[in-house]
Amino acid sequence: MDIKKVGKINNSKKVIDIGDNIKIGGDNFVIIAGPCAVENEEQVNKTAEYLNKLGVKILRGGAFKPRTSPYSFQGLGFKGLKLLKNAAKSYNMKVISEIMDPRDIENAYEYVDIFQIGSRNMQNFSLLKEIGKVDKPVLLKRGMAATVEEWLMAAEYIALEGNENIILCERGIRTFENYTRNTLDLTAVPIIKDLSCLPIIVDPSHGTGRRNLVIPMSRAAVAVGADGLIIEVHPNPSEALSDGEQSLDFVEIKKLIHEINSIKTCINKFE
Amino acid sequence: MDIKKVGKINNSKKVIDIGDNIKIGGDNFVIIAGPCAVENEEQVNKTAEYLNKLGVKILRGGAFKPRTSPYSFQGLGFKGLKLLKNAAKSYNMKVISEIMDPRDIENAYEYVDIFQIGSRNMQNFSLLKEIGKVDKPVLLKRGMAATVEEWLMAAEYIALEGNENIILCERGIRTFENYTRNTLDLTAVPIIKDLSCLPIIVDPSHGTGRRNLVIPMSRAAVAVGADGLIIEVHPNPSEALSDGEQSLDFVEIKKLIHEINSIKTCINKFE
Amino acid sequence: MDIKKVGKINNSKKVIDIGDNIKIGGDNFVIIAGPCAVENEEQVNKTAEYLNKLGVKILRGGAFKPRTSPYSFQGLGFKGLKLLKNAAKSYNMKVISEIMDPRDIENAYEYVDIFQIGSRNMQNFSLLKEIGKVDKPVLLKRGMAATVEEWLMAAEYIALEGNENIILCERGIRTFENYTRNTLDLTAVPIIKDLSCLPIIVDPSHGTGRRNLVIPMSRAAVAVGADGLIIEVHPNPSEALSDGEQSLDFVEIKKLIHEINSIKTCINKFE
Amino acid sequence: MDIKKVGKINNSKKVIDIGDNIKIGGDNFVIIAGPCAVENEEQVNKTAEYLNKLGVKILRGGAFKPRTSPYSFQGLGFKGLKLLKNAAKSYNMKVISEIMDPRDIENAYEYVDIFQIGSRNMQNFSLLKEIGKVDKPVLLKRGMAATVEEWLMAAEYIALEGNENIILCERGIRTFENYTRNTLDLTAVPIIKDLSCLPIIVDPSHGTGRRNLVIPMSRAAVAVGADGLIIEVHPNPSEALSDGEQSLDFVEIKKLIHEINSIKTCINKFE
Repeated sequence: MDIKKVGKINNSKKVIDIGDNIKIGGDNFVIIAGPCAVENEEQVNKTAEYLNKLGVKILRGGAFKPRTSPYSFQGLGFKGLKLLKNAAKSYNMKVISEIMDPRDIENAYEYVDIFQIGSRNMQNFSLLKEIGKVDKPVLLKRGMAATVEEWLMAAEYIALEGNENIILCERGIRTFENYTRNTLDLTAVPIIKDLSCLPIIVDPSHGTGRRNLVIPMSRAAVAVGADGLIIEVHPNPSEALSDGEQSLDFVEIKKLIHEINSIKTCINKFE
Repeated sequence: MDIKKVGKINNSKKVIDIGDNIKIGGDNFVIIAGPCAVENEEQVNKTAEYLNKLGVKILRGGAFKPRTSPYSFQGLGFKGLKLLKNAAKSYNMKVISEIMDPRDIENAYEYVDIFQIGSRNMQNFSLLKEIGKVDKPVLLKRGMAATVEEWLMAAEYIALEGNENIILCERGIRTFENYTRNTLDLTAVPIIKDLSCLPIIVDPSHGTGRRNLVIPMSRAAVAVGADGLIIEVHPNPSEALSDGEQSLDFVEIKKLIHEINSIKTCINKFE
Repeated sequence: MDIKKVGKINNSKKVIDIGDNIKIGGDNFVIIAGPCAVENEEQVNKTAEYLNKLGVKILRGGAFKPRTSPYSFQGLGFKGLKLLKNAAKSYNMKVISEIMDPRDIENAYEYVDIFQIGSRNMQNFSLLKEIGKVDKPVLLKRGMAATVEEWLMAAEYIALEGNENIILCERGIRTFENYTRNTLDLTAVPIIKDLSCLPIIVDPSHGTGRRNLVIPMSRAAVAVGADGLIIEVHPNPSEALSDGEQSLDFVEIKKLIHEINSIKTCINKFE
Repeated sequence: MDIKKVGKINNSKKVIDIGDNIKIGGDNFVIIAGPCAVENEEQVNKTAEYLNKLGVKILRGGAFKPRTSPYSFQGLGFKGLKLLKNAAKSYNMKVISEIMDPRDIENAYEYVDIFQIGSRNMQNFSLLKEIGKVDKPVLLKRGMAATVEEWLMAAEYIALEGNENIILCERGIRTFENYTRNTLDLTAVPIIKDLSCLPIIVDPSHGTGRRNLVIPMSRAAVAVGADGLIIEVHPNPSEALSDGEQSLDFVEIKKLIHEINSIKTCINKFE
């Protein structure tokens, strides 16, 4: 594996500064949460308000949605990004959102604090190169059939253009098992820690596709050493326009945060 | 599966006109051949000259190369497209080449007769939508972890924008078997014929990754009912800048064409 | 790969003698057909009678059925083997049937001309060793998640005990694609031909799980160079106790045999 | 899914009694450890002595080894079982060992406290039925390409014969990722808890195939809610006759036990 930029040199670990004293990597543990898709002002504001009370500092929300079918809800686009940014501002939160088109980066720049590259675009090399020229952090999700090596090489594409503020995100791989939406490969966490200087977080929402599996897999993600979690939360999951079956409601996200904080404290003692 | 544009309506079969009386689909069987990557003028001209003698009418060649590592040869870009077009013109051939960036479509338009969307970009929805607005045919490769349903929905994205001249290409899926580069899923051919009106061709070069498997798998592709083949050919495979181990030399492509013509004649009798 | 017994030494090819001038491997092409499970005397006799008219010389039929659920039909056991043998005798056919328990081999010996080891037992090493001591041919199906290398090593277990009359059978591997029951990996045929002296046949019935895919995939199997086919046939597939949705009826098996004979003749010319 | 015996009825959870007050399931957390293969008296005694000091109460060790190649070390057979039993006795430990042949069960009965059915035999239905008649507990490993549903149906085969003392063991599934030996699917733990009354433990040694991944994945297994772990330990992993690269040494197993106890205490508070 020919990693020059994102490999582990002198046992270094990259800590990524999101601003306002929010950091990802190193001794920091980050929780990113929010709706799968931005649907309307009320939904996103209500979610931001509640998450903020729980101490969540980064708000997720999809504005450009990569959907298998062109007939599914495609997201609100820039209108969604604005709603998301407004909600985040009101509660002093940062924004992460997915960009799919290199031509949208410039216009999205003012609304987004972390650019997300989704699973389906992990090897969209034009997009990787373009995001590599931006001076804001990038979350790079693992492709659903990507090996760890291919994933790190995709990060290398970004880093080579100058942007080394890359956060990796394990979100499940495609296997023969169809009880879950994907197979969450938590082994990727210690492997990445071993091979790379980049922080890695886990997405148990897409990784399982089932609400009742999100909490146990989040606990496992913390215990295995992940630098954070990204979780889908919706005020009313049963009415969500997308991914309702894997979104937590407010009671569940509260329980999740309580439990992972507890495990994190435990883990910290022996690390 | 909610296919409106690319499904099989009234048992219809789409025949795609490439110009100069070259057609893909229906009763036509197409052979597309050429180097993995355009390397230099001599290589591409020599290949075009030889292929033309064998009756091949569509020349393939990569100018923009999606490589796992940013340190691998990335292709010659527009310079490569021009070399390819010139070689094709000299021998009255058509050109197919991969485009990875929606911003390159306009400039590539004059050099390309069929736009190729590669496996890694099968769900690059921005690219699909943009190519859907073009008035030239598109070859849509199956994603390496895409189900047949996801593949058809990707085609639907293109068709919805207006461009219904879509050719599908099975190029192998990712499985646990690592003796071959991918696992060529020939079953996709009769399934696509059953569900869709689109023609489907097979890429045994990427599908196997091994030269000695290309001929037998090509024979199987014809027998199973594919509408054509796309084959990597190089004047000197051992010196190729990419994919040399799966490229045929001139003697091998000649043998392949002889054999598949023979099987095609046989198959035609009972279809 | 450490293959001593089943590898390709001096380019040798094993031809396996089933008796009464029936041979598998070399220049011979074999069609094995019959019901998934032996259900009753009438069903198996009717099938044998019809297949015999079509020139089929080996009758398949399950007596011991490896079913995912213990509540599914488990087969008639030795009673089924006897019915199968009687039907075969009446029409001068040979019998192939699956054995799952090493303790059943002795009692099954008189009813079976070829012992079948099923996919789920490919690495049942006790069974492999026991069947290796028998003086009748063995059909070894590929495990549903077995690499070609593991498969050949399983054959080596049998050969090491003395029984070198092994026929391999590709029957589909498990992948993420769930439109078909398995993904039929036809590439295994030329790979096995390359690495091993053993004959290899193809099972498109289990390999696809869908009746309408059996004929096209059979044609592909012949074209790719397989030494034969094993096909599920039932007088009335819609009433079959198991695998009805992948069994051919009498009209379909007739069409299949006609088509593959035609392709075989074509192939023979250039081999 | 038609589970009658091993499903979750009235929210019941099965606790399995191994004797001498050792229990698996419910509020108990079990650590099973020992060498991949029993090699000689000194190796197994030394390991048992050390593990006993750490509080481990169940000793693992392979006597009948299912190896891909017939030329690999096949285990010491009954001689190995005796060495294992003697070592266990000396330190008041229980023995778990794999049986591959239904004919060996009777003779193995006196040496084994828990019978193990390995991954390759998960659908060896003859073996499942035979072990279902035994009055000692069974550890049923998940097949490397088995869905959770198929796994539970395999357990149902055992339970239907009368033996309901079944412990499930997740040991990794086969995927495209080849950096690890298998992909450890920890999601199986909460799924099994949801669908079944059976306890489930995790094997991170086979699940990863790499020593440095065993500790982090063990921590994750505890956090996700597993009922225990089975770990390969060797006095000198670099000289092990099999699986040395995934075996922990004495220092590592001590660290592992310390960490998982700590996480278990933490988890218990919120469960």
